[in-house]
Amino acid sequence: MTVWLNGSLVASGAAWIDPADRGFTLGDGLFETIRVKDGAPCHLPRHLDRLAAGAALLHLPLPHDAAVLAAGMRALVAAHDVADGALRLTLSRGTGARGVLPPADARPTLLMTLVPAGHLTSPVHAVIAGCTRRNEHSPLSRLKSLNYLDSILARQEAAARGGDEALLLNGAGRLAESSVANLFLVIGGRILTPPVSDGALPGIRRALVIDRHGAEEAPLGPDDLARAEEAFLTNSLSLRPLVSVDGHPIGAGHGGPVLATLLEDAEL
Amino acid sequence: MTVWLNGSLVASGAAWIDPADRGFTLGDGLFETIRVKDGAPCHLPRHLDRLAAGAALLHLPLPHDAAVLAAGMRALVAAHDVADGALRLTLSRGTGARGVLPPADARPTLLMTLVPAGHLTSPVHAVIAGCTRRNEHSPLSRLKSLNYLDSILARQEAAARGGDEALLLNGAGRLAESSVANLFLVIGGRILTPPVSDGALPGIRRALVIDRHGAEEAPLGPDDLARAEEAFLTNSLSLRPLVSVDGHPIGAGHGGPVLATLLEDAEL
Repeated sequence: MTVWLNGSLVASGAAWIDPADRGFTLGDGLFETIRVKDGAPCHLPRHLDRLAAGAALLHLPLPHDAAVLAAGMRALVAAHDVADGALRLTLSRGTGARGVLPPADARPTLLMTLVPAGHLTSPVHAVIAGCTRRNEHSPLSRLKSLNYLDSILARQEAAARGGDEALLLNGAGRLAESSVANLFLVIGGRILTPPVSDGALPGIRRALVIDRHGAEEAPLGPDDLARAEEAFLTNSLSLRPLVSVDGHPIGAGHGGPVLATLLEDAEL
Repeated sequence: MTVWLNGSLVASGAAWIDPADRGFTLGDGLFETIRVKDGAPCHLPRHLDRLAAGAALLHLPLPHDAAVLAAGMRALVAAHDVADGALRLTLSRGTGARGVLPPADARPTLLMTLVPAGHLTSPVHAVIAGCTRRNEHSPLSRLKSLNYLDSILARQEAAARGGDEALLLNGAGRLAESSVANLFLVIGGRILTPPVSDGALPGIRRALVIDRHGAEEAPLGPDDLARAEEAFLTNSLSLRPLVSVDGHPIGAGHGGPVLATLLEDAEL
């Protein structure tokens, strides 16, 4: 295994993070999970745009430009000889003294890792998480930040209740997304997804489904699940039918025609 | 500098975190900040009880018992020859493969660091954060988790607006706490602090002020700041008068009689 750390390929056994890195001590950073398909990262400009927007919001300087990152990704793919995989880019603030206020002269840490991974399309039986809610009042709900404990708690609850995945409500009780994916419901032939203002992460694939397939943002509640003709979950590495929630089936119990259309779209 | 990492004292230049540690990749962990006074950690049983409760909620096994941790703290204090300091204990899930669901056989990382630090009593000019809210619907608001980005954002906003500190509202618009401390208002002679159910971290010192000085949990709104005879902020390393919020003075512009009483209590 090889990783790309702060500009260089490093054998993973020789790559280390400083214990004073604010990514470790405070979750002070961001990440992107990028699909690698046929040896190339998918939708890289969109991922890097989102990363840059998040870094700007956190006042976290990006230590490398897009060309350096793209070259690093190529080197990582070549080192692993991986055709289909998951490339994770992690950007943290780097080391800092005690305290929450970041140092003015932060030297961020940028780590990229790659593991083989296929594209997942298997059906999902979900639960609605009761243990936590997504915070639509925080800009973090719109960033892929390193603060993932709410998702971890929800996913643990799903596993304990026999589910594959957890849907999270926001503070107002509306559907926001799942622990790792965006949610879409097809109702009356329209493809609907919770708005970003309700706590949905602006997923790259979510944007593509909106741009290329006419999906619309609409506030959705748990009651809307029973009205859906079909439902599915999207992230950069999966397009999965959501076939039941809390034991209640959705649609026909397998993927519907809208998802079938998405699965045929090679640009997604 | 020396740190205590997974059971041993290590020179800080030789102590490293695996890039696959879920503390770094997902903020999957907890911490405690413990005051060291005259060479001894203060209120250690309360800190370790809170840590154990948080670890249980996250299903995160504690890798060392209280006796081992206490011995590690003594060794750390001896190595630094520090009389008054801040000891930070960080517990993360340890390494894991890609994905939010923790590995069943997690081997947690436990790091302890110590830096010299005095006890802070200087006055605070705060702002009410507009950029984010505390999520009272998440159990994380009741844990000292590694997910600190909301506090970082609020503290950055305070600095940009010329403040020392930021107060955070919860989703319902009530006062929850500051970015790193619990909030107390004295109104009509009663010492009031936002309830944990409103998103206040159950601070160790907060509990001591309740137990030893008769403070009471009460929902508080921004309007209550103008009614307060005095206000103060507490955490394990500070007892500070809150003398203005968004430019509006509170009380006499310096500490009041209740804070003076607390500052005389050697058991706090």
